[in-house]
Amino acid sequence: MRNGNRKPDQVRPVAMTRHYIKHADGSVLIAYGDTQVICTASIKEQVPPFLRDKGQGWLTAEYGMLPCSTNERMQREAARGKQSGRTMEIQRLIGRALRAVVDLKKLGERTIQIDCDVIQADGGTRTASITGAFVALHDAVQKLLNQQLIGTTPIRDHVAAISAGVYQGVPILDLDYQEDSSCGTDMNVVMTGEMGLVEVQGTAEGQPFSRQELDAMLDMSQRGIQALVALQKETLMST
Amino acid sequence: MRNGNRKPDQVRPVAMTRHYIKHADGSVLIAYGDTQVICTASIKEQVPPFLRDKGQGWLTAEYGMLPCSTNERMQREAARGKQSGRTMEIQRLIGRALRAVVDLKKLGERTIQIDCDVIQADGGTRTASITGAFVALHDAVQKLLNQQLIGTTPIRDHVAAISAGVYQGVPILDLDYQEDSSCGTDMNVVMTGEMGLVEVQGTAEGQPFSRQELDAMLDMSQRGIQALVALQKETLMST
Amino acid sequence: MRNGNRKPDQVRPVAMTRHYIKHADGSVLIAYGDTQVICTASIKEQVPPFLRDKGQGWLTAEYGMLPCSTNERMQREAARGKQSGRTMEIQRLIGRALRAVVDLKKLGERTIQIDCDVIQADGGTRTASITGAFVALHDAVQKLLNQQLIGTTPIRDHVAAISAGVYQGVPILDLDYQEDSSCGTDMNVVMTGEMGLVEVQGTAEGQPFSRQELDAMLDMSQRGIQALVALQKETLMST
Amino acid sequence: MRNGNRKPDQVRPVAMTRHYIKHADGSVLIAYGDTQVICTASIKEQVPPFLRDKGQGWLTAEYGMLPCSTNERMQREAARGKQSGRTMEIQRLIGRALRAVVDLKKLGERTIQIDCDVIQADGGTRTASITGAFVALHDAVQKLLNQQLIGTTPIRDHVAAISAGVYQGVPILDLDYQEDSSCGTDMNVVMTGEMGLVEVQGTAEGQPFSRQELDAMLDMSQRGIQALVALQKETLMST
Amino acid sequence: MRNGNRKPDQVRPVAMTRHYIKHADGSVLIAYGDTQVICTASIKEQVPPFLRDKGQGWLTAEYGMLPCSTNERMQREAARGKQSGRTMEIQRLIGRALRAVVDLKKLGERTIQIDCDVIQADGGTRTASITGAFVALHDAVQKLLNQQLIGTTPIRDHVAAISAGVYQGVPILDLDYQEDSSCGTDMNVVMTGEMGLVEVQGTAEGQPFSRQELDAMLDMSQRGIQALVALQKETLMST
Amino acid sequence: MRNGNRKPDQVRPVAMTRHYIKHADGSVLIAYGDTQVICTASIKEQVPPFLRDKGQGWLTAEYGMLPCSTNERMQREAARGKQSGRTMEIQRLIGRALRAVVDLKKLGERTIQIDCDVIQADGGTRTASITGAFVALHDAVQKLLNQQLIGTTPIRDHVAAISAGVYQGVPILDLDYQEDSSCGTDMNVVMTGEMGLVEVQGTAEGQPFSRQELDAMLDMSQRGIQALVALQKETLMST
Repeated sequence: MRNGNRKPDQVRPVAMTRHYIKHADGSVLIAYGDTQVICTASIKEQVPPFLRDKGQGWLTAEYGMLPCSTNERMQREAARGKQSGRTMEIQRLIGRALRAVVDLKKLGERTIQIDCDVIQADGGTRTASITGAFVALHDAVQKLLNQQLIGTTPIRDHVAAISAGVYQGVPILDLDYQEDSSCGTDMNVVMTGEMGLVEVQGTAEGQPFSRQELDAMLDMSQRGIQALVALQKETLMST
Repeated sequence: MRNGNRKPDQVRPVAMTRHYIKHADGSVLIAYGDTQVICTASIKEQVPPFLRDKGQGWLTAEYGMLPCSTNERMQREAARGKQSGRTMEIQRLIGRALRAVVDLKKLGERTIQIDCDVIQADGGTRTASITGAFVALHDAVQKLLNQQLIGTTPIRDHVAAISAGVYQGVPILDLDYQEDSSCGTDMNVVMTGEMGLVEVQGTAEGQPFSRQELDAMLDMSQRGIQALVALQKETLMST
Repeated sequence: MRNGNRKPDQVRPVAMTRHYIKHADGSVLIAYGDTQVICTASIKEQVPPFLRDKGQGWLTAEYGMLPCSTNERMQREAARGKQSGRTMEIQRLIGRALRAVVDLKKLGERTIQIDCDVIQADGGTRTASITGAFVALHDAVQKLLNQQLIGTTPIRDHVAAISAGVYQGVPILDLDYQEDSSCGTDMNVVMTGEMGLVEVQGTAEGQPFSRQELDAMLDMSQRGIQALVALQKETLMST
Repeated sequence: MRNGNRKPDQVRPVAMTRHYIKHADGSVLIAYGDTQVICTASIKEQVPPFLRDKGQGWLTAEYGMLPCSTNERMQREAARGKQSGRTMEIQRLIGRALRAVVDLKKLGERTIQIDCDVIQADGGTRTASITGAFVALHDAVQKLLNQQLIGTTPIRDHVAAISAGVYQGVPILDLDYQEDSSCGTDMNVVMTGEMGLVEVQGTAEGQPFSRQELDAMLDMSQRGIQALVALQKETLMST
Repeated sequence: MRNGNRKPDQVRPVAMTRHYIKHADGSVLIAYGDTQVICTASIKEQVPPFLRDKGQGWLTAEYGMLPCSTNERMQREAARGKQSGRTMEIQRLIGRALRAVVDLKKLGERTIQIDCDVIQADGGTRTASITGAFVALHDAVQKLLNQQLIGTTPIRDHVAAISAGVYQGVPILDLDYQEDSSCGTDMNVVMTGEMGLVEVQGTAEGQPFSRQELDAMLDMSQRGIQALVALQKETLMST
Repeated sequence: MRNGNRKPDQVRPVAMTRHYIKHADGSVLIAYGDTQVICTASIKEQVPPFLRDKGQGWLTAEYGMLPCSTNERMQREAARGKQSGRTMEIQRLIGRALRAVVDLKKLGERTIQIDCDVIQADGGTRTASITGAFVALHDAVQKLLNQQLIGTTPIRDHVAAISAGVYQGVPILDLDYQEDSSCGTDMNVVMTGEMGLVEVQGTAEGQPFSRQELDAMLDMSQRGIQALVALQKETLMST
């Protein structure tokens, strides 16, 4: 039995608090169980040098963890003087995932900067970041629409993410930290609201995995993402 | 008139939420008005090299701001690859302030690591950090006492901090961001529960200030810190 | 039609030159078409701190590109003072892929350091790195066996990698640089000789991809990896 | 009794050698007893980006110590690859102190760069730096006046600095290294020629200090700074 | 007797493979015995800031070693985050050596970037780099001439380099790694095709050396460089 | 005619002030004309890791320039976060030059750390550094002898350095900054008191130089170094 009596394909309780940070153009505190991430979106009326005068915008993401967010306090990356490979990998993933549903031409020559900062970690920080960042992005875009800086939304579809794994031979969904650490296979799936695949990242930590296991994890993930997208819609409906 | 109809010597509403982060040995979310800081204390059964085998402990602090905590998003220090002079100055201040009330010999050969991470900034982030970090420190020390790793508390007294300034010739207490930016003189005061001075840092941003103004700011700060210490006691009393 | 009249599921000519660098414990120059990578394996009689006295070994990998290996000369990472996110992501992938087929306990308390340095890049540098590094690893392990430092091989199976993509709606295998740049979906697959999955990394660069497209890419990749493993065996048979 | 039979409120012998470095626009070697600092001022016909086209100038400061200036050789910051928190704190202090007496509008769109490099350290390096830097600044401004690049001096007043402390219950002025290391309270005071306060930084190293002790230290510092300003005037009078 | 029965003034077998890297504007793989270096030249239609609008070009060089090129694997400089003093010294030397035979005015406002990357090291990597880089430079310049971007060649003469030393009292030429490590005196000589001296760098590792020894090493080096220049000419003659 | 009516083979006035910095084990302020360098030697009872338990000592050197020592203020290396290639090259040279006259076995398991910090630069900073550092080294060694930490001096001979060049076809000695900048060939020569060569570094900045020019510069340098060694002896004789 999983912690909290979860069934293998059951997602942890997910909560999103919008307008969490007053200075950001969009912001949300998202929780997947005990994992908590502050996601913000900031608009900058400028594009990076490689896109100047190309008639399009950009979206990029950064990711960080508070030193005390993890089980054992980890060293502050600002103090170490560099971001770890894991951090860079995750922030590249978040950026790609959101760009997959944004029409950068419609955004105009501006950049949306996503920040995902983990306050408390218990597995699935990158998937919670993507799901929460979408809502923050949505609110920032709404602000551009309200200010009539753009005429139509550049957002083409929802995007959300979930993890899956194979634990003692059984495929499970939305791993917490303990499951993640002892899991043979670990997978992150990013999908759109239309159920298109954006990212599939499966890794065998110990034993290789089979096509059947891959298929089972993908099936579960699809159902999980459907539920997350529904929750995003509900959240965005409320004031 | 100040924002929210505050009187010159009135502190903003202060709130402290204990046990905010589950992994830390002590943690609190502190708010001074719209300024919000997560303060944590982590115990490490080790001292830095310069204190090895000296029969005493150590306490040190780190400080950070989420990129979106400020009015305009600031660059992430981990991405820049170094901490700013301001960050280093503040984390040195927090460490000194707390060490002033800790008997490092009674702590034993272990380190208490304080982390203060600003979630939302509106002036006074360093003073809120000190006041909140004291509570997190207290809870971490309580854990050591509960585990009978130490016999008596190494904490000698409370410590708390407040800012003061001279705004258009009038001394005011606990400046918000807007007041801080337009203030002629800016001061941070750290005091113990016994009303002993731990730090006095006054800076003329524009015009030099007089001894009378200094005295007025110190008087106000003393009354403010009395109130903050009372609040710390009340918070620590509750479960 | 693809460059060089390749069919959609055809791998570029692959060549491996063993014993390419005289100082390394194992080394190979591998070519996937115009992509050329020097892969070496070095034995160090030491493990990293987190594994000390745990009765097991370690395998880690680093990756680099010569500044002139790419179409437009890229900045030297040693001169920039840091490795890019892409570099870190790739070297983490190479390390995980090889560890999946190594029994670290049988390796004993030593580290095998893999280095993959791209001499010339034309797409698929990370997949060529994995396939070539396996051969270098094999030769380093053979040296340990010859010196009777270990009694049985810690290598459990072959491992090799290939890329796949969807180009103008058609799934294709082993993308060259030009295909990679214009491809809607890009995938890297790592599998063992027993056809177990080790890594599946699929990314939608533009349009999301469907489960059918994912399946087609996985089927192709499996056949490609079968051929690569056969080639590894042949190479290791020769003197 | 203090070293050299100094009375509690007695400043060490202070010496200033003007025009010490031939390439600088203003330069002085200042000694507070055995503490020796080379202070220079360099004019750059440019302002930092955040001040461009605002019709005003800027003044900034950097501080360093020769590795052998201290009792035990310290590591060279250029070799370590970063400046310490202490260095940054001091150079920020020097810059603020001098800007307090400079009318940046009258300076025009140029920057005065102050460098304070400690040749030999025996306590009070930051206070000697401020007092000496004022003289270097004065000579650089005189050069601008002589070249008719500005019409009237942007310097509004003198500025000088001194340290004070409480040593075994007795307030003392201008601490040497030995006193500074064993002092319960340590204070740095920066004042203008008109006796306006620019910076007050008091720190309890061990015991908190009282308002009476603070007042005694401030009184002493004021008399010390009066003497230092008189010496600056005398130095600037001579050719 | 030297390795491979070499006579004291005998150069190791030298081989140059042109057009080694397809993306570079000029490239060569050069071998001095077991020392192998990839040298490339890249044209950039831009000059560094300090040369902007001065009607001349620039040539600069970078040098690196693959981690496994040496006897014991060395740490990757990109991973360490900085280039060693030795690396910087060598790349400055390569740049100066080549600039000595290039008329930067005739090059026009563009930069030629030389990269020398050591694949396998066995002594003499800096001298092989210079000799090989000249050929890569020549091919890049030929490309500019073919594209009619310049009318006449900016290359004034050949340039090549060789090492010499005093080993057990006997002057020897073109030291391999073992000789280099045990040599009393080590010298690098760079000369033009016209036998003009460009660089003479002699260092006593143990005993100082005499003028006679210096002269003997210079005489040998001159003959060695004559042979290297002849080889460069032959290489450039072939297609 | 040269500045100050110097003849081509005339050294600038050289001055050495011993015991310049009170904390160092040996220290000297050396001037070659307007070039002024503080040279110190510090004893550390420890050797670097690669020499541990080998029964010998070590000597190493660091070099720096004050930002205002040069004609135009240069950026502080500590602020830039790294030492330039030039700095590293010079400090490696100083270390090698002094090690050439020190018997590291006789030094015992300790390190002598040399620091050369340029206060004012006018050409020849590296040669002045070597000549001055020898005197600082001598005083540090004398301290070890006085404290009976070693029985006999590890210093085998004097060492000193001078620059030479070819200026408008004429060989000249000890170049000042202006000569150095406009010189066709630039050479640094390090010799022992016994007139053994330790380093010869000649560089053609523009035109290559001939063997005759090399010989003329070496002859001049030998006479210059003879004079410098005589001056070192005289300085060390005085109290």
